[in-house]
Amino acid sequence: MRSSDVEAALRHLRDVCAAMPPVAALRVEVAGFDGERLELRAPLAANVNDKGNAFGGSLVSLMTLAGWGLVSLQLQLRGIVAEVYVADSQVRYRAPLHADLAAQAWLAAGESWDAFFATLAQRGRARLQLEASVPLAAGGVATEMSARFVAIAKR
Amino acid sequence: MRSSDVEAALRHLRDVCAAMPPVAALRVEVAGFDGERLELRAPLAANVNDKGNAFGGSLVSLMTLAGWGLVSLQLQLRGIVAEVYVADSQVRYRAPLHADLAAQAWLAAGESWDAFFATLAQRGRARLQLEASVPLAAGGVATEMSARFVAIAKR
Repeated sequence: MRSSDVEAALRHLRDVCAAMPPVAALRVEVAGFDGERLELRAPLAANVNDKGNAFGGSLVSLMTLAGWGLVSLQLQLRGIVAEVYVADSQVRYRAPLHADLAAQAWLAAGESWDAFFATLAQRGRARLQLEASVPLAAGGVATEMSARFVAIAKR
Repeated sequence: MRSSDVEAALRHLRDVCAAMPPVAALRVEVAGFDGERLELRAPLAANVNDKGNAFGGSLVSLMTLAGWGLVSLQLQLRGIVAEVYVADSQVRYRAPLHADLAAQAWLAAGESWDAFFATLAQRGRARLQLEASVPLAAGGVATEMSARFVAIAKR
């Protein structure tokens, strides 16, 4: 994976995100990708609830978007055109977050990108389990998510 | 429950929602309450994804807010001051929604408001399971959620 390819894929993801009104409204930024984890960020000011901490809907939106973005980025890096949907998610809200939001998404244990792309090539459709979390500023986790995503190849 | 009390509680809920930046950004409206179900709505234009249908994060935000709003409304109707948090949620995305969003939230089977408020009065803290869903325009369900909420009494 060349870094110029990663940069181009991140630019494409930023453009797609910026074009989605709810994502722009929550002021989500695609922060970076280390080859395994995609990180998104959003300021607390745009995502604050009535109690002065991060709104639950914004936390799950950011984690869902990080998972969706990770699958989209991996498709883009392989030159595969497919639509990506979230199929289901389980979220645990562990502690309130009183700081800006950062969500990371990564492949769940036992999952493999190679197996996912092989299935997608064979059947035109494949599923994948991802994990995501939002850390607390002082260490520990504010919110964590496990979610399944589906990619459907465009013909 | 007098209808003037319900109207006052709905007005209060609308004010709280309007003051939350992410909720205002998604253009969420508190549509109504029939004594059991709270309904929220949001226009597709403010909540659309890259595929022209409702963004998964917006769907779960609206369902989460409907559940949170239902608990807040029931507290308000009883004159109890407490903070309400979402503790966990399980979401299934069943079909894409190509229309405006409407989410309803209601008490899960086996749960009781009386038991919830009795526990809150005794222990200063209580948990409750709610269900929520977003219907499809043509019938059936776009997305459904089961979530647990916690209320913590203010002293």
